[in-house]
Amino acid sequence: MIVTPQSMHFDAPLPLQSGALLRDYNLSYETYGMLNTSRSNAVLICHALNASHHVAGVYAGQDKSEGWWHNMIGPGKPLDTNKFFVIGVNNLGSCFGSTGPMHAHPDTGQIYGADFPVVTVEDWVNAQARLLDALGIETLAAVMGGSLGGMQTLSWTLQYPSRVRHAVVIASAPNLTAENIAFNEVARRAITTDPDFHGGHFYAHGTVPKRGLRIARMIGHITYLSDDVMNEKFGRKLISASQSAQERDYFYSTLEAEFQIEGYLRYQGDKFAEYFDANTYLLITRALDYFDPARAFGGNLSLALARATAKFLLVSFTTDWRFAPKRSREIVKALLDNQRDVSYAEINAPHGHDAFLLDDPRYTSVVRSYFESMEVTA
Amino acid sequence: MIVTPQSMHFDAPLPLQSGALLRDYNLSYETYGMLNTSRSNAVLICHALNASHHVAGVYAGQDKSEGWWHNMIGPGKPLDTNKFFVIGVNNLGSCFGSTGPMHAHPDTGQIYGADFPVVTVEDWVNAQARLLDALGIETLAAVMGGSLGGMQTLSWTLQYPSRVRHAVVIASAPNLTAENIAFNEVARRAITTDPDFHGGHFYAHGTVPKRGLRIARMIGHITYLSDDVMNEKFGRKLISASQSAQERDYFYSTLEAEFQIEGYLRYQGDKFAEYFDANTYLLITRALDYFDPARAFGGNLSLALARATAKFLLVSFTTDWRFAPKRSREIVKALLDNQRDVSYAEINAPHGHDAFLLDDPRYTSVVRSYFESMEVTA
Repeated sequence: MIVTPQSMHFDAPLPLQSGALLRDYNLSYETYGMLNTSRSNAVLICHALNASHHVAGVYAGQDKSEGWWHNMIGPGKPLDTNKFFVIGVNNLGSCFGSTGPMHAHPDTGQIYGADFPVVTVEDWVNAQARLLDALGIETLAAVMGGSLGGMQTLSWTLQYPSRVRHAVVIASAPNLTAENIAFNEVARRAITTDPDFHGGHFYAHGTVPKRGLRIARMIGHITYLSDDVMNEKFGRKLISASQSAQERDYFYSTLEAEFQIEGYLRYQGDKFAEYFDANTYLLITRALDYFDPARAFGGNLSLALARATAKFLLVSFTTDWRFAPKRSREIVKALLDNQRDVSYAEINAPHGHDAFLLDDPRYTSVVRSYFESMEVTA
Repeated sequence: MIVTPQSMHFDAPLPLQSGALLRDYNLSYETYGMLNTSRSNAVLICHALNASHHVAGVYAGQDKSEGWWHNMIGPGKPLDTNKFFVIGVNNLGSCFGSTGPMHAHPDTGQIYGADFPVVTVEDWVNAQARLLDALGIETLAAVMGGSLGGMQTLSWTLQYPSRVRHAVVIASAPNLTAENIAFNEVARRAITTDPDFHGGHFYAHGTVPKRGLRIARMIGHITYLSDDVMNEKFGRKLISASQSAQERDYFYSTLEAEFQIEGYLRYQGDKFAEYFDANTYLLITRALDYFDPARAFGGNLSLALARATAKFLLVSFTTDWRFAPKRSREIVKALLDNQRDVSYAEINAPHGHDAFLLDDPRYTSVVRSYFESMEVTA
């Protein structure tokens, strides 16, 4: 499936939760499949921390350009684009196309940098709703997302209950725990205390706070994986020690990478620092921290979710300690308290939080069945 | 109990596991209680990452100078200094008195910095054994330690089996998992990529890599606590929001601390960066990474522990995800495979890895009973 990214310009200012206004912005998006005549088969995909609108398909002539949920979405796939019209959209504040801190403020012509306004899950959902307005889609067959994308999905059912028929919330949570916020904060501090950060205006200084980005990514990566999968994949294996031969002696160095897990994390950090924007990292982790629909209801999630009218599928993974199954069960319970229609699958997968992006036949078949049984009028 | 730190000088070079020699070094230590005439009541305490020889008692005229295991060790305490002669010793490479990277190399007069040799748990135990030689103590009633201190305790029973009658290994593990190493590595990278690190020779540049130390400590601190205790203590509480009053609105900032957990971690990081040496941090985390007595036995811990003849008490804490109970149970199993005398207590405590330093009546009474029933000839 060859796809082409698109961009839409919005003139009307977007009022943000913080009270700020974002005016004159673009949203990058992609679509897969065909909108039917009753406009009833649209599915919106919301992305997580370091993903984009490029959800499925490949770009013409570009090797390894598969979308981040390529295994899940396409012709004949669990979310079948022969039946559904699927929309991927890049969120505001991102560094992958939609207006973000790397772009110029329309009034001043200056790069936003640290002055890009803080955006929330609710703001993203409002921006996504405007994109759907522009595409002539009033009601979505479904919204679907994993992790932070699951938070947007949940928020859709609260902000626009009449526009969402189904919500597929994967490996997500009704808010972050103190430990989740703690990991985000360490990553942010690594970035903001990097001398190359310059208060977020590093573009003007011709620098990139790569040291901080590397550390942030290394921390993040640890939390995406399970202890078990890390032990299985790396264990205590040494760098440049063959598994069959007698293991070499230690290097006895505090500076050199000694264990394979160290080399792996350094590689992931280096790669990430080459393409990801530091201000985007701050914005997206903050959106994660702030999401808490129960907050306006004294912490009562059941009261908060009373507005939702969609049918729900929730999926969690047993070894996901970042967004543990018990957090999904909190959402399930709150929906059941409101007599909502909820399906829930807890997948016994070894891969930790990353499992939501991987192929697991139990996981993909749950999603496939859910979309297969979804009625769509022609 | 008023105590006074002491220091002992060693002229004979110490051969290290890496093949290097450390010559002309000092060990700082403290003792509590009286050595009996048969010299049979000595207990050695081994310290963990950021502790020292100041294990118990207070310094004359210094407020808040309690030793780090003050609740556990002293007259009438679980390890009763009316019965036992207790020795606290600071490890080589530390920044609290014993010879370390902040000291001068005896040959060159230059501060060691990054040139201080890598030291291992086994090296520390050898140095501790020399201190005991100098104190005229051949056999220890017990060695005791938590976390990294528990690793030294275990190593004592393997390196000097005939010199240890009892080993008390608390919240420890037979080696680090890939995830443990990963957290250490991120912390080390935060330090070594801080521009103020200067390859470890920051003393000569008049700088301290405080940014890196702060990040390292924040990461460490998250792993010392349990998710549960963090939620209970901080949850999603905002900074400067009273609990009784209506919660304030968010600051909507990516740079300011918004949640109390953020303020707490920043405070811990700042405090640590003021007193802890960056090279010591690298050395101690590396000693943790390298410890793996089963390595020389093809990974077979039962074979590795066959040398141990001591009686053992192991204690673990249910919410400790850094050194989880299952790691202690690996040691228990390997000892039982060798028909050794082992007691094991798994304490249902909410405080995570930090629990080994806290007061929990079930924990302290297990330790108290163990030492009370220990026979010591006059």
